[in-house]
Amino acid sequence: MNILTTLSFDGTCYSGFQVQKNAPTVCETFQDALEAVLGQRVPVIGCSRTDSGVHAKAFCLNFHAEPRFLLERMPLALNAHLPQDIRVMSARQVPDGFHARYSAAGKEYRYHIRRGWVDSPFTQPYCWRVSAALDLDAMEQAAQLLVGRHDFSAFMSAGSSVQDTVRTVFEVRLEEQGEYLTLIIRADGYLYNMVRIIVGTLVQVGVGDLSAGSVQQALDTGCRSLAGPTAPAKGLFLAQVFYPPQALGDTGPGPADCGDQADGL
Amino acid sequence: MNILTTLSFDGTCYSGFQVQKNAPTVCETFQDALEAVLGQRVPVIGCSRTDSGVHAKAFCLNFHAEPRFLLERMPLALNAHLPQDIRVMSARQVPDGFHARYSAAGKEYRYHIRRGWVDSPFTQPYCWRVSAALDLDAMEQAAQLLVGRHDFSAFMSAGSSVQDTVRTVFEVRLEEQGEYLTLIIRADGYLYNMVRIIVGTLVQVGVGDLSAGSVQQALDTGCRSLAGPTAPAKGLFLAQVFYPPQALGDTGPGPADCGDQADGL
Repeated sequence: MNILTTLSFDGTCYSGFQVQKNAPTVCETFQDALEAVLGQRVPVIGCSRTDSGVHAKAFCLNFHAEPRFLLERMPLALNAHLPQDIRVMSARQVPDGFHARYSAAGKEYRYHIRRGWVDSPFTQPYCWRVSAALDLDAMEQAAQLLVGRHDFSAFMSAGSSVQDTVRTVFEVRLEEQGEYLTLIIRADGYLYNMVRIIVGTLVQVGVGDLSAGSVQQALDTGCRSLAGPTAPAKGLFLAQVFYPPQALGDTGPGPADCGDQADGL
Repeated sequence: MNILTTLSFDGTCYSGFQVQKNAPTVCETFQDALEAVLGQRVPVIGCSRTDSGVHAKAFCLNFHAEPRFLLERMPLALNAHLPQDIRVMSARQVPDGFHARYSAAGKEYRYHIRRGWVDSPFTQPYCWRVSAALDLDAMEQAAQLLVGRHDFSAFMSAGSSVQDTVRTVFEVRLEEQGEYLTLIIRADGYLYNMVRIIVGTLVQVGVGDLSAGSVQQALDTGCRSLAGPTAPAKGLFLAQVFYPPQALGDTGPGPADCGDQADGL
């Protein structure tokens, strides 16, 4: 049986999802819990690697197993063996061919910024605090330049072995709520650190250190140094992963129910 | 100079505000930071005691001191000496007679409930999770019985030495947002554990274990055993404290700006 599981995790204490030597990872922690529940160690396929310190509202993964209990009980069983900073939100059977990473048609990330001079004790682990005044109109204008099919080389950190640097950004949106500013981005895929560099760039535009013209030039030339710095990991959330209904074995339309929309900051 | 300071704190690791022997408290931690900034230990008056594990969005306190720097710098100076789970949001001068507790005309508390079978890693320290289905209409109806001037003896835990158990509840409101349900209550004052017993009672009404009639009977008789259990501390936030403008030395109208309204969960 191929099982799709969605996790919410606070990434603060983990070196990302992917298993690493000598560092705690979400994948390894999940595999430990899965082993406790199934009685055997099982390989797990994650929808993305996620960087160290990045959070997820609805991280999707799949694995093949034959549990000797009802699938509906899987989240409770796994949660009993997981630390509080990782929670299994749901589990469902999917067709054998489903692959959490390769079947994904796109992902939504959300990046949270807190404006002002003082952190909140409640959101400090989940926001980048920016004390400088931000020109939201200028940020919005620059953000819209990113929408569409582009070579995002300028928005990729060194150290990636990816050859094809063209991605399609479906939507970029800025939402303001009191002190908080959230960048919401949906794309078919992302380069290494792409969202964090986009956020770092838009904040520089907001502060007035970069113009929309420079953002366009960064896109056109692929030159990393024309874009802004990489924003801190702690503000970034993988919010949703989108799968075609047929990959999930669904007859109905719409993206996978991988989200916990109300679970805002 | 009499200085009014507002704090946000995550109460998880503290035995409430009030200084205690052999237990970490918000007051003592704040006084340590204040001593580091002022060079001397100063008594501090808090707006309320707050229970162990209860949080605050805008806890008000005052102290008398003559800082040798601009008052606007006080929050940054104090925050540099405070742990991340306590943040000073603002500091302002108030008339000599201002007393954070006795000058308060009322307070707003908010209690967060998460509905469902799974905690969120992000809100788990700040919500009471209730998995049973809740009848919100019944809860709303019972909640409205509490509004007004009543003897709230039935909604007070044992161990309080308070003589006058009459309080005026100005408003009780239930707000639903996705999985989250928030009880918002404004009153001129509160008895020991009053908000948490109100929440425990309303949840029992929502589950169907108590009727609105029993709530009325609890109010009428003052019998603690007719009300529901005390809800866990971790869901409770002191949200706002209200002072008359003249106590603050303000000429303008309205309550004190002690809130960070957008700082939701």
